[in-house]
Amino acid sequence: MTRSVKNVLFIMCDQLRWDYLSCYGHPRLATPNIDALAARGVRFTRAYVQSPVCGPSRMSFYTGRYVASHGATWNGVPLKVGEMTLGDYLRPLGVKTVLVGKTHMRADTEGMQRLGIDPNSIIGVRVSECGFDPYERDDGLHAIGPDGRYDPQVPRYNRYLNDQGYQGDNPWHSWANAAQGDGNALASGWAMRHARKPARVKEEDSETPYMTRRAMDFIVEAGDSPWCLHLSYIKPHWPYIAPAPYNAMYGPNDVLPVVRSEAERLNPHPVYREFMAHQVSRTFAREEVRTEVIPVYMGLIKQIDDQLGVLFGFMEQQGLMANTLVVFTSDHGDYLGDHWLGEKDLFHEPSVKVPLIVCDPSPAADAGRGSACDALVEAIDLVPTFLDALGSDWRRQSHRLEGRSLVPLLGGGVPAQWRRYAVSEDDYSRLPVAARLGMEPRDARLFMVADRRWKYIHAMGFRPMLYDLEADPSEFRDLGADPAYAAERDHLAAALGQWSLRQSQRTTCSEEEMLAARGEARRHGILVGVWNESDVPEELWSRYREDGK
Amino acid sequence: MTRSVKNVLFIMCDQLRWDYLSCYGHPRLATPNIDALAARGVRFTRAYVQSPVCGPSRMSFYTGRYVASHGATWNGVPLKVGEMTLGDYLRPLGVKTVLVGKTHMRADTEGMQRLGIDPNSIIGVRVSECGFDPYERDDGLHAIGPDGRYDPQVPRYNRYLNDQGYQGDNPWHSWANAAQGDGNALASGWAMRHARKPARVKEEDSETPYMTRRAMDFIVEAGDSPWCLHLSYIKPHWPYIAPAPYNAMYGPNDVLPVVRSEAERLNPHPVYREFMAHQVSRTFAREEVRTEVIPVYMGLIKQIDDQLGVLFGFMEQQGLMANTLVVFTSDHGDYLGDHWLGEKDLFHEPSVKVPLIVCDPSPAADAGRGSACDALVEAIDLVPTFLDALGSDWRRQSHRLEGRSLVPLLGGGVPAQWRRYAVSEDDYSRLPVAARLGMEPRDARLFMVADRRWKYIHAMGFRPMLYDLEADPSEFRDLGADPAYAAERDHLAAALGQWSLRQSQRTTCSEEEMLAARGEARRHGILVGVWNESDVPEELWSRYREDGK
Repeated sequence: MTRSVKNVLFIMCDQLRWDYLSCYGHPRLATPNIDALAARGVRFTRAYVQSPVCGPSRMSFYTGRYVASHGATWNGVPLKVGEMTLGDYLRPLGVKTVLVGKTHMRADTEGMQRLGIDPNSIIGVRVSECGFDPYERDDGLHAIGPDGRYDPQVPRYNRYLNDQGYQGDNPWHSWANAAQGDGNALASGWAMRHARKPARVKEEDSETPYMTRRAMDFIVEAGDSPWCLHLSYIKPHWPYIAPAPYNAMYGPNDVLPVVRSEAERLNPHPVYREFMAHQVSRTFAREEVRTEVIPVYMGLIKQIDDQLGVLFGFMEQQGLMANTLVVFTSDHGDYLGDHWLGEKDLFHEPSVKVPLIVCDPSPAADAGRGSACDALVEAIDLVPTFLDALGSDWRRQSHRLEGRSLVPLLGGGVPAQWRRYAVSEDDYSRLPVAARLGMEPRDARLFMVADRRWKYIHAMGFRPMLYDLEADPSEFRDLGADPAYAAERDHLAAALGQWSLRQSQRTTCSEEEMLAARGEARRHGILVGVWNESDVPEELWSRYREDGK
Repeated sequence: MTRSVKNVLFIMCDQLRWDYLSCYGHPRLATPNIDALAARGVRFTRAYVQSPVCGPSRMSFYTGRYVASHGATWNGVPLKVGEMTLGDYLRPLGVKTVLVGKTHMRADTEGMQRLGIDPNSIIGVRVSECGFDPYERDDGLHAIGPDGRYDPQVPRYNRYLNDQGYQGDNPWHSWANAAQGDGNALASGWAMRHARKPARVKEEDSETPYMTRRAMDFIVEAGDSPWCLHLSYIKPHWPYIAPAPYNAMYGPNDVLPVVRSEAERLNPHPVYREFMAHQVSRTFAREEVRTEVIPVYMGLIKQIDDQLGVLFGFMEQQGLMANTLVVFTSDHGDYLGDHWLGEKDLFHEPSVKVPLIVCDPSPAADAGRGSACDALVEAIDLVPTFLDALGSDWRRQSHRLEGRSLVPLLGGGVPAQWRRYAVSEDDYSRLPVAARLGMEPRDARLFMVADRRWKYIHAMGFRPMLYDLEADPSEFRDLGADPAYAAERDHLAAALGQWSLRQSQRTTCSEEEMLAARGEARRHGILVGVWNESDVPEELWSRYREDGK
C-alpha cells in the first residue's frame, strides 16, 4: 500500500455551478487556489449529484446512498433514524468526523422518540446531525417570516456578529445579508436588485471567512488525532450579496451570455414548462437580473477561493497537505437564467453537474495529478472514497453504500468495469409546480439516467425527456417525444428499471454474510426435504441422536 | 360509524396452503371451525403474500410494507431498527399488541448497538420482536446441528415439556417432533419417512394446543384492555409429525393427485430448473413421500382447526366474538410435490397464495358475511385493516404503509379503484440454487407481478416467466419465452417498473405534511427569485424591516 492519508478535508460549496471556476474553464473568474488543488489532484468533469436540491443531495453525499434509498427526498424531510452516515463509517476507524457549516439535515425527532433516543445524548446529537459531531452547525439560512424562523437553531455566527458590534436579533440578515438602503432602511439581500451593493459587514466578518477560521480552529484543536472535517460553505448560495470588495469585483462585462434557446419554449415538456413559469425562472429570464446577480455570484466564489488560499496555506504550514485527502465539490448548481430557469431542481448540466476535485497526497496518486477524468461519478462515491483512502475495505459495506471508491481513478485511469449510468432524482412535491400540475406528493417525481452520451428523464405521469449531450451539448432539444429516438429511450428506461430494482434496503446483512449463510441452516439442524436419515451426512444427526436416550 | 371492534385476533398458520381447508374446497379435509369463521366473515380467494418465505413474508405482514421496502429479504436477515411494526401503529391507540408463537424475526443487534438501544429495555425488546410484546415468542424451530442451535432462544415450551415429565435438553425435538424408533432409538421428525408415526407427546402437550392455551391465558390476563393478539402457530410447517390421533387421521386415500406436468420439465426456466433439482423437490417428486407426508400435513391442519374450535368457544363464552376482529391466514404455502417442487420460494399458487379469512363483528360487515371475495389482496393489507377496524385513519400513515384497508371489502363489495397488481418477491441468495446459478447475493432475486389473469415473474439475469391463470389455471405452461405473449410481458414489466419506483422510503413525512409544506419556506422568510420588494406581499418582509433600524 502506498497510502498516506490520515485526514480528510471535505469542502462543499452550496449552489456552485460546475463551470464557475477557472480550472473548469470559466474565462472571467480566476480561482487560482482551487485551480492549484486541481493541479495537485484529479478534476472530474462528469460528476453528478443524486438530486439537484440541497437537502436530498447532501443526504446522499453523507450516506453514500441514492435519494430513493435514504428517503430524505427534499429539504426538511428528516433523514430517518438508522440511516448510516459518514461519521458512522469513519468513527470506528478512529477518525473524528466533524462539521463546520451546512448540512441541511432535519432530524427525525419522531423516530428518535419512538426508539427512546435522547436528542441531547452523544448518539442523539449525531443522529440529528448526519452523523457528524457538530463543531459548528450552521445551515446559513436564518430567514424569518410571518410564520417565524426557517431554521429553529440560532447560529453561533449571530452571537459572533453581536460580539463584533453588529446589533440586532438576527445580524445574519441585517448585517451579513443586507446592504444599507436609503436612510435607516435596509436593502435586504432577499431582493436581488440590491445584489451588487456591499453587505453591511466587514469582509472578515462575513460567513465565508468566519467558517474558514472555524475550520482552522478545529484543526488546531484536533492536534494529532485523525479527522474528517466537512467544511460546508453556504456560499455562493442566495441571498446573493457579498461584502466589499467582492460585491464589486466583477461587473456586467464579466457575465457570460445566457444559454437558452427560443426553441425550448415551443411546446416544452409539461414539467419543464411549469418550472419555466416559476417566479424565480421568470425573474432570471430578465437580463437586468442576470447582470446584477451573476457578478456577485462570481464575487462570492472568488471569496471562497481566497479563503481556501488561506486555509491551504495554513495546512501547508502545519504539514497537513502531506497527509490529508482534500475534496472540493458542491451540492448542486444554479441555472442563473440558463434554459429560462432559475435555481436548480431540473437536470440540465448547470443544475445537476458539480465541480469535483479530489487531491490525494499518496504516492499512488502521483500519476493522476493535474489530470481531468471524464468517468461518470456520483456524489455517493465520496463515502467509499474516504473509506478507501483511509485504508478501510469499503466493499464490505456495499450492502449499504451504493457508490464506489474513486481512489482507483486518482492514479489517472478508469477501471474497465466502471459504472455506465448516473442517476439523479427530484421530488418536487413541495413546490407550487406540483400543485399546478395536479400531482399528488407521492407522484411528483423525476428520475434522470445519464450515460456518456444520453440524458433520459423519467417524469412520473408524463412522457419522458431525452437529450443528446454529444450532438446538442447545450441541451436545447428535448427528444423525449421524437419517434426517431424510441430505441435510446427504451434503452435508458431499461437502465432505470434495473436501477430501481437494486437491493437497497437489505442493509443489515452484508454480501459476505449472505454468502456465508448459504447452507448454514442445515449445520444448525434444519434438515429440509430429508426422507431417510442416510440422505444427509451422519454428522448432521449427531445432536438428535443424543436426545434419543 | 358502525364499528364494533375493540380487539384483534390475528391468527397465522405456517406453511398452510390456501387450498387445504374445506371452505377453500379441499374435498377430504374438513375444517368446520375455520369454515364457521368464513361463514361469519369474508373469505379472500386471491390473497398473496409478499414473499413465499417465512421471514420476509412475516416482516411484510407486520410492517405493512413490501419486502424491498423493509429489507428483511430472507429468514435470518434482521429487520432494521426504525422500521415501524404493528405494535408501533396500534399501541398509540391504547391497544396492547402481543405475540404468542412465531415471527421468525431476527433483531438488528448491530443497529441497536449503534443507536444505543438496550436490547433488554422495553423499547429494545419490542424492536427485537417486530414491535410485539412477547407474551410467548416461539419460532417453533429448535433445531440443533453440528454448529449448534438454529434459534438461540430456548423456548418456554421446552421447560413446559420437562415439567410434564418429558426429559432431555431439547424435548421440542425428542418428544414433540420425534416418534419412537426401534429400541431406544428416536425416529426424528426431520426424516420424513417417520411422518405418520405418532409424536412422542400426548396431544394436549403438542405445540398447537399449548400455544392455544397460551393465547387464552393472555386473553384472560388482558381483562378489559383492548388487545391485538398475534397467535402464530408453527404448524403445519415441517418437521411433519403429529401426535395421536392426528398422525393417523388421514391416509394415502385422502391425498389429492399431484399437480404437475411432464411439460414442465421440458426446457424449463433456468431458475425453475434449479429449484426442481433441489433436494426437497426431488424428495417430494416421489409418490411414497407424498403419501406419507401429506396425510400428516392434513392432520396438523385438522388439529389447528380443532384448537380454533376450543379458542372460538372460549371467546364466545367471554363475549369476545362480538367485539373482536378475527383474521385467519398463513405466511405462505407448501408445494408438497406439485410442479415437481417441495417447500415454497417460487410463485405458483400453492406457494404464494394463502387462505385469508377476515371476520368483522361490526354491523357494517353484515352484508358480506359468508361471501368470497376475489379482489387482489396482499399481506401488507392487514396493518391498514387493523387500524381501520379500530377506528384509526390508516391513510395518514400511507407514507409508510404500502397496503390498503380491507374493511371496505368486508361489506361484500370491492371499491372501484382497487389495486390492479399484486407483487411478491424472493431473495434466493442464501439457497444453494443461487450458487449453482452463479448468482451474486445482490442479484439472486425474483419479482412476481400478478393481475387478475396473468402472472409475470421477473428473474434478474434471466428471461422472465409468464403464466395465464385463466387459460392454464394449473400453471403448467410458462409463456415467458413465447413471442406471442410479448405484449402481455411488456405490460406487466411496465407495472413492475412503476411499482419499483414507488415512494417507499420517505417514511418520515406524511403526504399531508408534504402538502402542508408547499409554500411553507416563504412564510418562514425564504424569498427566492425576488427582484424587488414589491414582487411579494409586504407581509413577508415584516420581520426583515424590524431588523433594519
